[in-house]
Amino acid sequence: MALRVICLMSRFNAMGVTTACRSMSSKANSKNIGFVGLGNMGGPMASNLMKSGHKLHVFDVSKEAAGKMKAQGATVYDKTSDLAGKSDFVITMLPNNDIVWKTYEEMTANGVNENTVFIDSSTIDPNVAQQVQKLVKAKGGRFVDAPVSGGVPGAVNATLTFMVGGTESEYECVKTILEGMGKRITHCGSYGMGQAAKLCNNMLLGISMIGVSEAMNLAIRLGLDPKTFSDIVNSSTGRCWSSEVYNPVPGITPTAPANKGYAGGFSTELITKDLGLASGIATSSNTPIPMGAMAHQIYRTLKSRGYGSKDFSVIYEFLKNEKNN
Amino acid sequence: MALRVICLMSRFNAMGVTTACRSMSSKANSKNIGFVGLGNMGGPMASNLMKSGHKLHVFDVSKEAAGKMKAQGATVYDKTSDLAGKSDFVITMLPNNDIVWKTYEEMTANGVNENTVFIDSSTIDPNVAQQVQKLVKAKGGRFVDAPVSGGVPGAVNATLTFMVGGTESEYECVKTILEGMGKRITHCGSYGMGQAAKLCNNMLLGISMIGVSEAMNLAIRLGLDPKTFSDIVNSSTGRCWSSEVYNPVPGITPTAPANKGYAGGFSTELITKDLGLASGIATSSNTPIPMGAMAHQIYRTLKSRGYGSKDFSVIYEFLKNEKNN
Amino acid sequence: MALRVICLMSRFNAMGVTTACRSMSSKANSKNIGFVGLGNMGGPMASNLMKSGHKLHVFDVSKEAAGKMKAQGATVYDKTSDLAGKSDFVITMLPNNDIVWKTYEEMTANGVNENTVFIDSSTIDPNVAQQVQKLVKAKGGRFVDAPVSGGVPGAVNATLTFMVGGTESEYECVKTILEGMGKRITHCGSYGMGQAAKLCNNMLLGISMIGVSEAMNLAIRLGLDPKTFSDIVNSSTGRCWSSEVYNPVPGITPTAPANKGYAGGFSTELITKDLGLASGIATSSNTPIPMGAMAHQIYRTLKSRGYGSKDFSVIYEFLKNEKNN
Amino acid sequence: MALRVICLMSRFNAMGVTTACRSMSSKANSKNIGFVGLGNMGGPMASNLMKSGHKLHVFDVSKEAAGKMKAQGATVYDKTSDLAGKSDFVITMLPNNDIVWKTYEEMTANGVNENTVFIDSSTIDPNVAQQVQKLVKAKGGRFVDAPVSGGVPGAVNATLTFMVGGTESEYECVKTILEGMGKRITHCGSYGMGQAAKLCNNMLLGISMIGVSEAMNLAIRLGLDPKTFSDIVNSSTGRCWSSEVYNPVPGITPTAPANKGYAGGFSTELITKDLGLASGIATSSNTPIPMGAMAHQIYRTLKSRGYGSKDFSVIYEFLKNEKNN
Repeated sequence: MALRVICLMSRFNAMGVTTACRSMSSKANSKNIGFVGLGNMGGPMASNLMKSGHKLHVFDVSKEAAGKMKAQGATVYDKTSDLAGKSDFVITMLPNNDIVWKTYEEMTANGVNENTVFIDSSTIDPNVAQQVQKLVKAKGGRFVDAPVSGGVPGAVNATLTFMVGGTESEYECVKTILEGMGKRITHCGSYGMGQAAKLCNNMLLGISMIGVSEAMNLAIRLGLDPKTFSDIVNSSTGRCWSSEVYNPVPGITPTAPANKGYAGGFSTELITKDLGLASGIATSSNTPIPMGAMAHQIYRTLKSRGYGSKDFSVIYEFLKNEKNN
Repeated sequence: MALRVICLMSRFNAMGVTTACRSMSSKANSKNIGFVGLGNMGGPMASNLMKSGHKLHVFDVSKEAAGKMKAQGATVYDKTSDLAGKSDFVITMLPNNDIVWKTYEEMTANGVNENTVFIDSSTIDPNVAQQVQKLVKAKGGRFVDAPVSGGVPGAVNATLTFMVGGTESEYECVKTILEGMGKRITHCGSYGMGQAAKLCNNMLLGISMIGVSEAMNLAIRLGLDPKTFSDIVNSSTGRCWSSEVYNPVPGITPTAPANKGYAGGFSTELITKDLGLASGIATSSNTPIPMGAMAHQIYRTLKSRGYGSKDFSVIYEFLKNEKNN
Repeated sequence: MALRVICLMSRFNAMGVTTACRSMSSKANSKNIGFVGLGNMGGPMASNLMKSGHKLHVFDVSKEAAGKMKAQGATVYDKTSDLAGKSDFVITMLPNNDIVWKTYEEMTANGVNENTVFIDSSTIDPNVAQQVQKLVKAKGGRFVDAPVSGGVPGAVNATLTFMVGGTESEYECVKTILEGMGKRITHCGSYGMGQAAKLCNNMLLGISMIGVSEAMNLAIRLGLDPKTFSDIVNSSTGRCWSSEVYNPVPGITPTAPANKGYAGGFSTELITKDLGLASGIATSSNTPIPMGAMAHQIYRTLKSRGYGSKDFSVIYEFLKNEKNN
Repeated sequence: MALRVICLMSRFNAMGVTTACRSMSSKANSKNIGFVGLGNMGGPMASNLMKSGHKLHVFDVSKEAAGKMKAQGATVYDKTSDLAGKSDFVITMLPNNDIVWKTYEEMTANGVNENTVFIDSSTIDPNVAQQVQKLVKAKGGRFVDAPVSGGVPGAVNATLTFMVGGTESEYECVKTILEGMGKRITHCGSYGMGQAAKLCNNMLLGISMIGVSEAMNLAIRLGLDPKTFSDIVNSSTGRCWSSEVYNPVPGITPTAPANKGYAGGFSTELITKDLGLASGIATSSNTPIPMGAMAHQIYRTLKSRGYGSKDFSVIYEFLKNEKNN
């Protein structure tokens, strides 16, 4: 009910209100949702939407991935433009800038239903997100970027964080849909700002994790007890998420990937991708990021040494293997 | 009373118990305390000890610094060896490795009173701290390293954190004395481990602060609102002490130096010194610290561009001044 | 005569021979040459082609720049597609990836004369160069990338180096034209390899210059005489182009920009652009470039501190201003 | 004869002239030479001096190493102070700062023969070299630092380069002795400047080698032919010793270690040591060395990954092993 009021109010805002949003309030939860990209992340996300009572219209280049969703009750499409024509919301979850751009070009080539709201949950360059928004808008539709954090477990358990870039009314409009897949839905600002927030946060995360690994490793080599030192750090000025809840040293944080051979978690490959995107936008915006660039190169080197599929905290393992001479 | 029990118990420990410690419990708070090095940190620390009821015996190469303490009731000495002869505890607060080493050589040249406990609160190489401990022990005395964090405000307000390296019984013994100058007295391990913990923590702090500055700057240049982005980071995986309580962007954390022109706080000069020490011990222990080394060079460059006396969070100011072309 | 033989021979090669090339040999030097982009580099390059006896057809978004060429005898066009229709060769000299791509899209939108050879002398991403080649080929034309080194003085004095990416026959075909603007015309490989060679070389140059600056600065601060040290380096394993002929320390290499306040030369802005492109292609090719990335960030920081228009060897000046404390 | 005149003239200089030098000219080549440190470098160096007709007085902590020299005709000593008493010149070739300092303390504890000239060919901190010079001078002797480059092959073949720090007359005095072990004897300036020159040059070398490796690797991954690209670099602004005569890519420079599995040459371990010393003196002289520090960390990481005994150009091998995803 509260949402309806907000949506009706925002109808008179400069940005207007989407029909998808309005109709949503009257028809409660059950919407027609298109989903493009049914991989490790997209698959469970789409499943969760079905569990929430939505009707799913899906597409994937892999027949197998699409087939799995069909078995769960989704309608499978050969063309994303057909899929979009049947959907109140379309969610895309794709691997990179180029594929996102091409998918939207194809999907919107013949125009879009003005009621449809497109949500891109891929992680891409904020500038590309802004171009996609313009493309969709030019066709008469609406678009927000809403990249996620939380990884495959977050996708499976519907505990993802969504970082949304769009107007206030668009944010309110997509919020209830996204809540079917995640726990925290954050409004980051206008178009592209969801991507920007994700990339900037992950750049800092990537830097901190290497910093914690270097500090822990140096402390241990100097003779400090790892647990004692991490306690000191965590009650002092060095504390950070990586030291407190995701410590890269085995035996410190029970739930961290460090305790299961750096399996699972957030892969080196994915943080390398995010830091590559961050480097690109830093270059295009003339922003110096000395530590971010160095972190990028370190994860890239890790990847080249065969650690790509390990959790990114494996950097500790990589650094610690120093021999004594 | 509790302390007395601990001290008496520790008397029977492998490491024994100091007479300074034993007598302390019987004579309550009033001890003879030698203090060597009465600068911006040492001066207020010594004053606080006097306020706690101790009798101070002081030395400084500056007659003026020593004179100030005399005016407050301290006895001034020309020779540290004489000072040590009158003291239950001797605290040293000196600028670098060489001065610490030479001071201890002179102070102990004619032997030391076996009851005296020496406490070095300077920030130096842990290896030097270990050598000083051996020197003092060879003369029959006891030594712990106990570097501080908290800066001049912590010294003035007796809210410093002390990181102590020594045996458990030595830690218990010096704790009540140090509580006259600080709020948190942490036992980090054996000799040198106080220094090691401080340097490793500060290396991580130095890395995190640059990371936060880069991430905030990039976010702002991409169009994110600084407050919105810092809120996102602080409830996400990028959060750290530097983002939460000491944000380098003006207007985010009310009490941070960023809001008063980067005055006060923890100077670029001091973090450069700490990172220089960290680099040195990383080299001597064959430990790779790519991010720590880079952070060291960045603060060193800042210093060379005239920011040495500013709070180290001025790195944000330095990075943000990018022009648009 | 020799060239004619080569061209005729290459007619029977797999790659074929261009009509532009064949007709060139019969009609000697005088060709119709289109020139798009008449800035600091393009302007003098076009002038030199006219001095070599060619007929110029020019375009620039700036009426003033185009007007200057008109005064020298060139024909000015409003549309690049019209210009291309009148030209045996079209040379483009443009600021970045996007402008190059858009220019070629417009210029070739209505098809191209199959006799026309397009030469892009801009510095851009090799992947974009390859895409432009495909675009031109699809329209029935031929394309080579031919970025330059040598800067504005090289453009003015017709002493540029051209790094050509294309087939052997295309290289031979464009060589005589390029010789009207430069001294060294190098064949680097297939399409995009001119760009790749330039960017990789300049990345190494950017690294070396900072390395020389750090080594000279450290040597001087340790007490070495700058001239003595540079002589030692130049007859030893540290020697490089930057130490031998372009030393960043004033008074060492007489002709270097260091001796005239770092004016002229190769600007910090331009090397930052080249290193940004190098970083981009390293990211897209999964190649670790730790030193290249760091060099990029250092020049970017220099630029942000107001040194963008100075020669890139000003990094020495930036580093040396260290104060003693 | 020319040397004698210089030496006699310099007798009246402020710095005086050594008897060792004067007598050298009268007694031609045969001198009593002490040699301390008979390892991989020192052993062949001492042998070459014997081959030149000198009488050798040797010491090593390893009986085996000393025994080998005895077999060649040297006199073996148990105490370096006894050795020094019999020698016109004493050459030390030792692993690090501490061992050099302790050796000179012991060797000069009972005073030194005023005729004896001490030459330290170890690679150490220039500040330590200056302290050793003061120690020797205080005992009435003379000292120069004369570190080498050229490695074990240079030591074996008497083709080393010596970088000498001392007065002009001391340089002339030691030159003929050093010529028995090397080809190039360079005067770098006053005490410690031999060490400073070596470390600064090697820092630049370490940077350049990584730069060449990154540029070659990126070029190859982009599709350039390695030979073509190295030819372009070597006739362009990226050229340096590492690209021209010691290329890290197999198949480019026939004599380079890259062609024999990176065996032999200049080990990663040794350049790591040199860069560690360079980092230390940069810290103590407040000199920013961003690229030098990064190069140091990269070689240190290489070492920690098991490449310590390989030639330092193995960095190319390390970087190139990137997988495609």
